[in-house]
Amino acid sequence: MSSKENIVWRSLSSNDFEKGYIALLSELSTVGNVDKSAFLGRLHQLQQLPDYYILVAEDTNKSTVVASGTLLVELKFLHECQSVGHIEDIIVSKLYRGLGLGKVLIETLVQEAKNRNCYKVILNCSPGNVGFYEKCNFVQHELQMVQYFHK
Amino acid sequence: MSSKENIVWRSLSSNDFEKGYIALLSELSTVGNVDKSAFLGRLHQLQQLPDYYILVAEDTNKSTVVASGTLLVELKFLHECQSVGHIEDIIVSKLYRGLGLGKVLIETLVQEAKNRNCYKVILNCSPGNVGFYEKCNFVQHELQMVQYFHK
Repeated sequence: MSSKENIVWRSLSSNDFEKGYIALLSELSTVGNVDKSAFLGRLHQLQQLPDYYILVAEDTNKSTVVASGTLLVELKFLHECQSVGHIEDIIVSKLYRGLGLGKVLIETLVQEAKNRNCYKVILNCSPGNVGFYEKCNFVQHELQMVQYFHK
Repeated sequence: MSSKENIVWRSLSSNDFEKGYIALLSELSTVGNVDKSAFLGRLHQLQQLPDYYILVAEDTNKSTVVASGTLLVELKFLHECQSVGHIEDIIVSKLYRGLGLGKVLIETLVQEAKNRNCYKVILNCSPGNVGFYEKCNFVQHELQMVQYFHK
């Protein structure tokens, strides 16, 4: 059984390739071939930009990252040049579901958005996840439209 | 009558405060008190960041910006470290609607997203605008959830 006892929350760091970050993301969507060099390159890019905050939960007992979520802060002219927080790529590893990690993840990213002068925070989810986000104080608003590019 | 004849498409620039950019945004949502100094400060911030592209249409006959939209390119680890384009703050001034400017605006931002290694482009809209975005080759996907921060 997994438990919350050894869970530590922190920013994504360069050690997280070895700690299973890519495998964790693969539970969310297609990752494809991201080797250590690609991981470190992308992480370095993100760390240079002020508008990303990637939160992870590590099970320190297993040296494994078991949950992750990203806050992207979009700078606007609207609302007196405030910002909008975009919550992206929320994932809790299957073995760690039911422990409340998802709620901590969202609440921490929402608090970070408040700290960063956002007037609102938004995210997109499937209909099946609406109830979870309502428990996290979100309300349903607009519709998401998408256009995929096929190579 | 407004016409497309004198419309020029280009990036947002520092002259656009005088050319009515804030008034244009006010047709979309609340802007509040954004004076020239605040406008230039925010524009300068955005110009330092590689992930924003703000497209405007100017009616050169009237030295007025009459349409605008933003592409924010989000860097991901997913899909082999590709990116996702977020289309934000789409507005065509009331007097210039029905001329097809909205479609040019969206198509130009979508092309920019392709050029910037995005594997998809997303946006949120009200149910009443779904038909317009379907004509621009978008399909409806997820639901947008929002949490507003009240100060």
